[in-house]
Amino acid sequence: MIVAMQDQASDEAIQNVIERMVELGFNVHRTTGSVQTILAGVGTPSHFDVSEFKVLTGVHDAYRISSPYKLAGRSFRPEGTRITFPNGVVVGGEEVIIMAGPCSVENRDQILTSARQVAAAGAQFLRGGAFKPRSSPYSFQGLGLEGLKLLREVADETGLLVITEVMEISQIDVMLPYIDCFQVGARNMQNFNLLRELGYVRKPVLMKRGIAATIEEVLLSAEYILSGGNYDLMLCERGIRTFETYTRNTMDVSAIPVLKKLTHLPVFADPSHGVGIRDLVPPMALASVAAGADGLLMEMHPNPDKAMSDGAQSLRPEQLTELVKKLKQLAPVVGRTIAEGVTATAPAK
Amino acid sequence: MIVAMQDQASDEAIQNVIERMVELGFNVHRTTGSVQTILAGVGTPSHFDVSEFKVLTGVHDAYRISSPYKLAGRSFRPEGTRITFPNGVVVGGEEVIIMAGPCSVENRDQILTSARQVAAAGAQFLRGGAFKPRSSPYSFQGLGLEGLKLLREVADETGLLVITEVMEISQIDVMLPYIDCFQVGARNMQNFNLLRELGYVRKPVLMKRGIAATIEEVLLSAEYILSGGNYDLMLCERGIRTFETYTRNTMDVSAIPVLKKLTHLPVFADPSHGVGIRDLVPPMALASVAAGADGLLMEMHPNPDKAMSDGAQSLRPEQLTELVKKLKQLAPVVGRTIAEGVTATAPAK
Amino acid sequence: MIVAMQDQASDEAIQNVIERMVELGFNVHRTTGSVQTILAGVGTPSHFDVSEFKVLTGVHDAYRISSPYKLAGRSFRPEGTRITFPNGVVVGGEEVIIMAGPCSVENRDQILTSARQVAAAGAQFLRGGAFKPRSSPYSFQGLGLEGLKLLREVADETGLLVITEVMEISQIDVMLPYIDCFQVGARNMQNFNLLRELGYVRKPVLMKRGIAATIEEVLLSAEYILSGGNYDLMLCERGIRTFETYTRNTMDVSAIPVLKKLTHLPVFADPSHGVGIRDLVPPMALASVAAGADGLLMEMHPNPDKAMSDGAQSLRPEQLTELVKKLKQLAPVVGRTIAEGVTATAPAK
Amino acid sequence: MIVAMQDQASDEAIQNVIERMVELGFNVHRTTGSVQTILAGVGTPSHFDVSEFKVLTGVHDAYRISSPYKLAGRSFRPEGTRITFPNGVVVGGEEVIIMAGPCSVENRDQILTSARQVAAAGAQFLRGGAFKPRSSPYSFQGLGLEGLKLLREVADETGLLVITEVMEISQIDVMLPYIDCFQVGARNMQNFNLLRELGYVRKPVLMKRGIAATIEEVLLSAEYILSGGNYDLMLCERGIRTFETYTRNTMDVSAIPVLKKLTHLPVFADPSHGVGIRDLVPPMALASVAAGADGLLMEMHPNPDKAMSDGAQSLRPEQLTELVKKLKQLAPVVGRTIAEGVTATAPAK
Repeated sequence: MIVAMQDQASDEAIQNVIERMVELGFNVHRTTGSVQTILAGVGTPSHFDVSEFKVLTGVHDAYRISSPYKLAGRSFRPEGTRITFPNGVVVGGEEVIIMAGPCSVENRDQILTSARQVAAAGAQFLRGGAFKPRSSPYSFQGLGLEGLKLLREVADETGLLVITEVMEISQIDVMLPYIDCFQVGARNMQNFNLLRELGYVRKPVLMKRGIAATIEEVLLSAEYILSGGNYDLMLCERGIRTFETYTRNTMDVSAIPVLKKLTHLPVFADPSHGVGIRDLVPPMALASVAAGADGLLMEMHPNPDKAMSDGAQSLRPEQLTELVKKLKQLAPVVGRTIAEGVTATAPAK
Repeated sequence: MIVAMQDQASDEAIQNVIERMVELGFNVHRTTGSVQTILAGVGTPSHFDVSEFKVLTGVHDAYRISSPYKLAGRSFRPEGTRITFPNGVVVGGEEVIIMAGPCSVENRDQILTSARQVAAAGAQFLRGGAFKPRSSPYSFQGLGLEGLKLLREVADETGLLVITEVMEISQIDVMLPYIDCFQVGARNMQNFNLLRELGYVRKPVLMKRGIAATIEEVLLSAEYILSGGNYDLMLCERGIRTFETYTRNTMDVSAIPVLKKLTHLPVFADPSHGVGIRDLVPPMALASVAAGADGLLMEMHPNPDKAMSDGAQSLRPEQLTELVKKLKQLAPVVGRTIAEGVTATAPAK
Repeated sequence: MIVAMQDQASDEAIQNVIERMVELGFNVHRTTGSVQTILAGVGTPSHFDVSEFKVLTGVHDAYRISSPYKLAGRSFRPEGTRITFPNGVVVGGEEVIIMAGPCSVENRDQILTSARQVAAAGAQFLRGGAFKPRSSPYSFQGLGLEGLKLLREVADETGLLVITEVMEISQIDVMLPYIDCFQVGARNMQNFNLLRELGYVRKPVLMKRGIAATIEEVLLSAEYILSGGNYDLMLCERGIRTFETYTRNTMDVSAIPVLKKLTHLPVFADPSHGVGIRDLVPPMALASVAAGADGLLMEMHPNPDKAMSDGAQSLRPEQLTELVKKLKQLAPVVGRTIAEGVTATAPAK
Repeated sequence: MIVAMQDQASDEAIQNVIERMVELGFNVHRTTGSVQTILAGVGTPSHFDVSEFKVLTGVHDAYRISSPYKLAGRSFRPEGTRITFPNGVVVGGEEVIIMAGPCSVENRDQILTSARQVAAAGAQFLRGGAFKPRSSPYSFQGLGLEGLKLLREVADETGLLVITEVMEISQIDVMLPYIDCFQVGARNMQNFNLLRELGYVRKPVLMKRGIAATIEEVLLSAEYILSGGNYDLMLCERGIRTFETYTRNTMDVSAIPVLKKLTHLPVFADPSHGVGIRDLVPPMALASVAAGADGLLMEMHPNPDKAMSDGAQSLRPEQLTELVKKLKQLAPVVGRTIAEGVTATAPAK
């Protein structure tokens, strides 16, 4: 930490800041200029709050100079994290991964049709919500456990992996037998109790960026999961809230290369929530992979006009198929390939 | 809902939109102009998603014209909601309520001293966190149950009411015996499962606005609690995230009169989180009451420089005392008074 | 400036940064820790760009520790700036100043009626636009020179001072004979050529905060005017753009006490543009003065429903009168008074 | 326009709204439901302000249903606008255009070297600032006319076209002899007097999106230029201001496909200002073209570490060369090609 004192700050004020720094565990180096004194705190205590120093008497400003996260930082694992799934799919390698499916599991027919279309398009993961947090209490709230069972059944039939959203601690154990990957939604990115529990689980997690979360906050939240021992973590940009209302959110595509630089964790993009309008999803999916994304998470529905939730942003099946074709052409430009589609390993019924 | 068709939209497209509206339960009135057709849907189905209509073929734009919330709307209870606490304190009436205390309960001495100072300053509620969600996993995380017991003990000794933050469903029952009011933090304003459970409880709730929540989203979240049957709900503006970084957040003071107009629920302001800098709290507290707030929630610490969390934004005890004096002068300008301070009803030890 | 090197940065990288700092005119103090080196640059060159250092090889981060503005800083004139107008009105003293009037000068009748109502309510300044920058080319664009003449005429009749917006350099000389104060609108806060010219004029200026301007940028823009020698400058908070769309902008009331701390310049508030809805203007005006504003700038129209621009946010005459009464009660709470109303000194026609 | 009345609005209130609508030139169709009345105004008056209706007595909400811009709308020229430059370069066709060069023209050597490197990399336009608006009055302010002459000279030598920023009306005539395209910077996107004058010029204009401008505001500003008769207009996304501070701005990549849908004007992207960090420019340039951009505007400097402005975001020459190679591979994926590089047609000195 660096503390820059105000011009002509009193010796007493300087001494008080130094003492407070030493108390926290810093070694303090003092640079005295003709008008301004600067205090450099060397060594990083396990915890300190830089804003406390900003309001001490005589302080001009204070700067944290070390990252507040450690395990999530690129230097912890410079070669990058790779996550291997049971069927051999690897996230974080040269291959770009496709996750697609409806917002909600609505019924057996809908999810089975979805899974077949998603697999046919060449994706590796089936997404679909069983527990649906909706902003209105009067909206459809999901099928719950029944939805999980349907996801597993149709995934096994098609060879896909299952990713679904976990919203609270009590759902973790319920989900474990049915899924391949937990998804933490944007609204839970700072649900620290949930993150801590997911750190103790031995199943991969994909954590979405909160709607108003800075990149640093994304990495601090990642640290919660990593510090519990679960290193199979993926991050996902899905749009932030800005003044622009034409799109549902403003997709921060630059967060993808920024995160790739700051952390070793694989970085996904969710253009469906990023823009919220079906026809904008393909260009934004292409842009995301061009910018370095390790994978895409997208909504697709067999019949979006009849979807029980998020129909406006769900791709039609033929749009997904067309998009994956273009992605296959684009990926080599940035030194990547799109992962192979899956095939059912379990005997079809 | 209104659907404005594109100029020269085809009859087929218009017919398709009409059918979809009727399916949802609207009565549709059609206005055909020389170039543009407008469809007015009268009658409000229990649920519909206006964004689905925006992407239908031939649609220019679609507008929801009814509020998506019902119980939270002003017209549900035009006279305003009043909440009466066990010791006779009334929230939502002519009197403005003061809630103050430290960010976290740190130990018996600290919280007892805090309570005495808060009571002496003239407040009615003691605030203090027992379970602390922090953005870094390496920060102090609160005393838990022990903190709740300490809060109750010192509140009884001073006559104050207790408000503390609930972060997950499992904490509700743990907290019930010790507290007078649940606080839902900004990060949980869209934790819909938690909100739903709080709707079933018979204990008042103060819900903070999320850092990126629109005013409409605040009222939709309120609807979750109200629809469970718990009408003893207060809302609280505490700053939103904007591009300005000098302050911790940007306090949206105008949300206070806007909410007073849109809803019957009492509206509080939390200037401590709103600005994050101690010396800005008093002017923003005065501004909040001038703008119509029904109460204030503020952080005060006996020794902010040694606080384990949020020290930078905690008032010193003498600042709180001085502020309450000014508030007592200001309140009558807007037709209010500051509530009387409390006195211990339980025998002091 | 402080440059924090990355852990284990090479000697070559460190040397390169030191050389670049010395080149710019810094004296460099080096603190070498076991893993990290910190370079403190003492002495402030007239110009440097801290972002250039952030991208040099081996640099972790770089921090400007001095303010980039000098003349605008509080320490330049700790006692605060006072501006005295020809009729004796003083801005920046104990008295809070009221400026009011219609968005646009529409015709003689409208502006004369406005002036009389504004004076009767107790204000000191008449505002009104002669040159109107509008976001649509098809909207009313103002009366131009004719509007300026009307403003002067009715101001003389009522004893009010005139403030009106200047939009480009060529208008400065046209306006000088007719007005008492230039207003720089939010859209021109970074029109640096205009600001520079206004620095050479000897007539007060009120500069509004840009819709997306940080507080630091406001002060840098102020520096442009001050560095030309015009010290009669007032700043004005008028709302920033955020994700909230219920109000026209989000009024950053906390910018008022922040600016009062950082600069010696008087700070106004414009609640009309801040919220954009008539009935929200009075509570926000009260809040602004409670937070420390030196004056208010507000829109009032004799008949807002027929206004040619900004009718929705213009107060009705009786609302202004009522508001000034409340402001007179509120000001003493924060150690201020509302300035006396004016009386015509020129013989009335 | 649609006006939705409040439930049980009085007949008088409804009648008043209808009269006001008729006054403006609407034909009003009234839909009376059991609780709510809806008024549809058909026919679009040349000007009306929807916010005035929102505050009329008895009104629940009001919606503009026609675009406030006409000439800029896609339907005005569905096939898209193509702009042909003197040397045959066409913007808005199948070919993607590259504009590159330093932030400022610093001296003859620097701009000549830049031009050669830009041409060698395969670009068609040389960018460079002669008049530099800077946020600090103490920063380098540009070479002015001398800079324009240098730009023309080196462009002629290399065969490049010249684009440079115009900041005020008086500069238009000064610039005309030396340049091929005017650039309107983000800070001037709502300098309506400047836009109007540029509408009367017969030289192409590239207008950047303001830092806080909505997409609708971009198109309204475009309307100012188009309505003067200058149809050779290009738009440019260059980042908006959000809460994220890691990057200089947040580049709204989705604005590219949105604008392509809403308007016939060519859409550029400026990733240099969009992110502000050199190494993030190539991925964002690729993302922009993947999302449908018609061209790129980028900063490149022969020696960015010594640049007098914006060095941190300027590409090194070899980075530009490498990037253009990748762009040539990527463009065909989205049905485009990168335009051919230029060759000097004027005899080299």
